[in-house]
Amino acid sequence: MKRLADIGEDALIGRLLSGFSHEGMLVGPGDDCAVIDSGQGLVRLLKTDAIVEQIHFLPDALPAEVGWKAVGRVLSDFAAMGGRPDFVLVTVALPSSVTVEWVESLYLGIRRCLETHGGILAGGETTSVPAGAPAMISVAGEGHARRDAWVGRAGGRPGDVLAVTGHLGGSISGKHLQFSPRLREGEVLAAAGARAMMDLSDGLAKDLPRLAKASGCGFQVEESLVPRTEGCSVAEALGDGEDYELLVAVPPSCWDRLRREWAADLAPLTAIGRLADDGGELVGGWEHFHS
Amino acid sequence: MKRLADIGEDALIGRLLSGFSHEGMLVGPGDDCAVIDSGQGLVRLLKTDAIVEQIHFLPDALPAEVGWKAVGRVLSDFAAMGGRPDFVLVTVALPSSVTVEWVESLYLGIRRCLETHGGILAGGETTSVPAGAPAMISVAGEGHARRDAWVGRAGGRPGDVLAVTGHLGGSISGKHLQFSPRLREGEVLAAAGARAMMDLSDGLAKDLPRLAKASGCGFQVEESLVPRTEGCSVAEALGDGEDYELLVAVPPSCWDRLRREWAADLAPLTAIGRLADDGGELVGGWEHFHS
Repeated sequence: MKRLADIGEDALIGRLLSGFSHEGMLVGPGDDCAVIDSGQGLVRLLKTDAIVEQIHFLPDALPAEVGWKAVGRVLSDFAAMGGRPDFVLVTVALPSSVTVEWVESLYLGIRRCLETHGGILAGGETTSVPAGAPAMISVAGEGHARRDAWVGRAGGRPGDVLAVTGHLGGSISGKHLQFSPRLREGEVLAAAGARAMMDLSDGLAKDLPRLAKASGCGFQVEESLVPRTEGCSVAEALGDGEDYELLVAVPPSCWDRLRREWAADLAPLTAIGRLADDGGELVGGWEHFHS
Repeated sequence: MKRLADIGEDALIGRLLSGFSHEGMLVGPGDDCAVIDSGQGLVRLLKTDAIVEQIHFLPDALPAEVGWKAVGRVLSDFAAMGGRPDFVLVTVALPSSVTVEWVESLYLGIRRCLETHGGILAGGETTSVPAGAPAMISVAGEGHARRDAWVGRAGGRPGDVLAVTGHLGGSISGKHLQFSPRLREGEVLAAAGARAMMDLSDGLAKDLPRLAKASGCGFQVEESLVPRTEGCSVAEALGDGEDYELLVAVPPSCWDRLRREWAADLAPLTAIGRLADDGGELVGGWEHFHS
């Protein structure tokens, strides 16, 4: 009998979602967000995500940073569509041995993230887990984007310039808890004509092939061009994961102007390669369930 | 230092949510769903919920029933507002020792529940949990209701007839996995002028005081009138929890017609008492975090 460890996350999700109706949706499961036409020049974005103690944060992490991360990951998915958050709902599953102070700090981090980056807390649920079980924070979010300027993973074409925001690698030294979701950068990229975009959560080596595959393309990357967090090797930049930066495919015709007009207070934008007709391989990255 | 076991769920949520902005919302955290004005004669409903192995289901539960329950609980919250589901997103957190077959059956149950009661799967995420940790399924949902006929918890007035759908108690013998969210009943009740409504998840003894408090009322209940699942005592009907039936407060002026016109294929509707100016006590019910 096959266990999750034998099959891996992408194959699992593909199997699970076959057979479901996706009526009324512009983009269904498999992209950073689900996209629903809501009329009035806008699309509605829906996203859910969860972080688990020992997997996404350690027991001694600062709870305010854990709360920031739980919400920031969902906001990063909105950024990846060129959208903005409207509402988030938070479910916290905790053992009853946790202190009230810990949960209050968790919520303080949630609040700080929403006040900094936008979004209203529409609902908060708590549930208990058995003694000794890891804490888990699940966040659902609703956002919106312009109907004429939202960006999925599937629109890239051979020849598009591949670029990333910020610097990659080294998340474990703290960045995975303290990142800024790239909402402004995502909006600028979407408005400038980006054809495909996603946020980097499992590492460029794992995520870029997903974007290329969704777009029906291959890719060529110059590894030496990948912007690295100070002190990180190329392998770490490609494989550490939890960067929460944007990976974007931009038509060559838009690239030069985008570079020229990229505001100084945005995270740096660096070209790393191109989408291609086929081929492309990078080594590394994080996969759930693989042992 | 206070632990969650010392404070209980309601007090905890109250402390956590103070200080958050609820801009743009008709109803914020604390009701069955968040309610957002979406124009066009409708309100949008948002809800998130989670079930945890060993708390909400046992390790040997049938996975298809676990999937049904995870989604059915959220649909039951839409029913409690007089609404209908549009989209759900599911996050599944599992140890990698779980079999692919188990997860596929879980998703089969999710699909059956959506096909039976409405709602489109808009997104599915998976994440790993450490070996030995309990499985958890988190479901976020978006739904809608008529702008002129959605029902929260806060609208009840002294003298309103209190009624429940179905039969209460005995959930542990299987009903907690096999219930039908009362969507049609909720819509009929909302259209007939119900002033306050909620679904019964922690037991009437725990939930009725919440509805009364939200409405600024007390209550009087004739315990012998509470419709009991066959073989259940009054204490079990009041305290077992996980009934997923509706508790509703209906103005006396609407009650007789509602009784007369209540369709035979709906779950039975039974008057159990009245909202009052003050007072009221019931013993029993489930509380997370209390040891």
